[in-house]
Amino acid sequence: MALGIGYADQTCNLARALEVLGERWTMLILRDCFYGVRRFSDLLAHLDISRAVLTERLNTLVEAGIVERRAEGGHPVYLLTEAGTATWPSLYALARWGERFGPPERRSGRTFRHWGCDAELDDHGRCPECGATPGPADVVTHPGPARAGDRTDPVSVALRSPHRLLTSVPA
Amino acid sequence: MALGIGYADQTCNLARALEVLGERWTMLILRDCFYGVRRFSDLLAHLDISRAVLTERLNTLVEAGIVERRAEGGHPVYLLTEAGTATWPSLYALARWGERFGPPERRSGRTFRHWGCDAELDDHGRCPECGATPGPADVVTHPGPARAGDRTDPVSVALRSPHRLLTSVPA
Repeated sequence: MALGIGYADQTCNLARALEVLGERWTMLILRDCFYGVRRFSDLLAHLDISRAVLTERLNTLVEAGIVERRAEGGHPVYLLTEAGTATWPSLYALARWGERFGPPERRSGRTFRHWGCDAELDDHGRCPECGATPGPADVVTHPGPARAGDRTDPVSVALRSPHRLLTSVPA
Repeated sequence: MALGIGYADQTCNLARALEVLGERWTMLILRDCFYGVRRFSDLLAHLDISRAVLTERLNTLVEAGIVERRAEGGHPVYLLTEAGTATWPSLYALARWGERFGPPERRSGRTFRHWGCDAELDDHGRCPECGATPGPADVVTHPGPARAGDRTDPVSVALRSPHRLLTSVPA
């Protein structure tokens, strides 16, 4: 746990979660892991952080058992563990809130649909078509409208098409 | 938006949400608002922050339209707006994650039950008894087991009994 991140005197599960997940950039790294970004260089190109910050955050996530570092074809890849995958409802709920209450001109319009049903998930991540609350592996993300100044890194380009979560990106 | 909090180049609803909600202490202040803590002095006693940080965070939340400052009996009180109340699924999901994956010795054991049904909500905030996903006004929180060194401020003491969210605490 990084200095100044703990909430030592708060006996509270929310505080426990934020001690690990609440650092700046951490949830956006996890978002990228859900998108299926696996390599350090792709994370670096898709996020606006320094190598040092990305390295530090990934080390923290690996130590906390949220992300697993594996060697694949000579380079390390980063994959969500069970604990990492279980952050999906939190990230989804926050993103829904951002879409609804964020500055209108900056909402992404990105949607999340149930694989198979193709129905957009509701505020609670439930499929209105079949009533299930799918895990991230059964969710397909669709991009919002293109904008001037859209990012041109390989991950951003790949995510301009519908993409099933947790499947590798860029392909 | 505080300096160093923005994610200017991330066209992403999660980033939008974190720009407002992601500052240190902000989600714990919102947690207290859901518990029904309304006064500055009670927030201060229940959180481990300075007056300056609490003032700054509350001002940010008021400016962002998440918390409303009202005068009541000669002192200001802080209440969640619609946008503030809508953060409930995010906070609930994070707290569930903390209970499941936080350090075992520091899990709070606090539970959240559907008012009326008295059934514990599931990972998605749904009542297993009736199938509804109640809003926070219909959720009752029950404390975990007491521990040595439990806080003795009035809010902590009041929350050692079951308490319906959004109803004023301490009474």
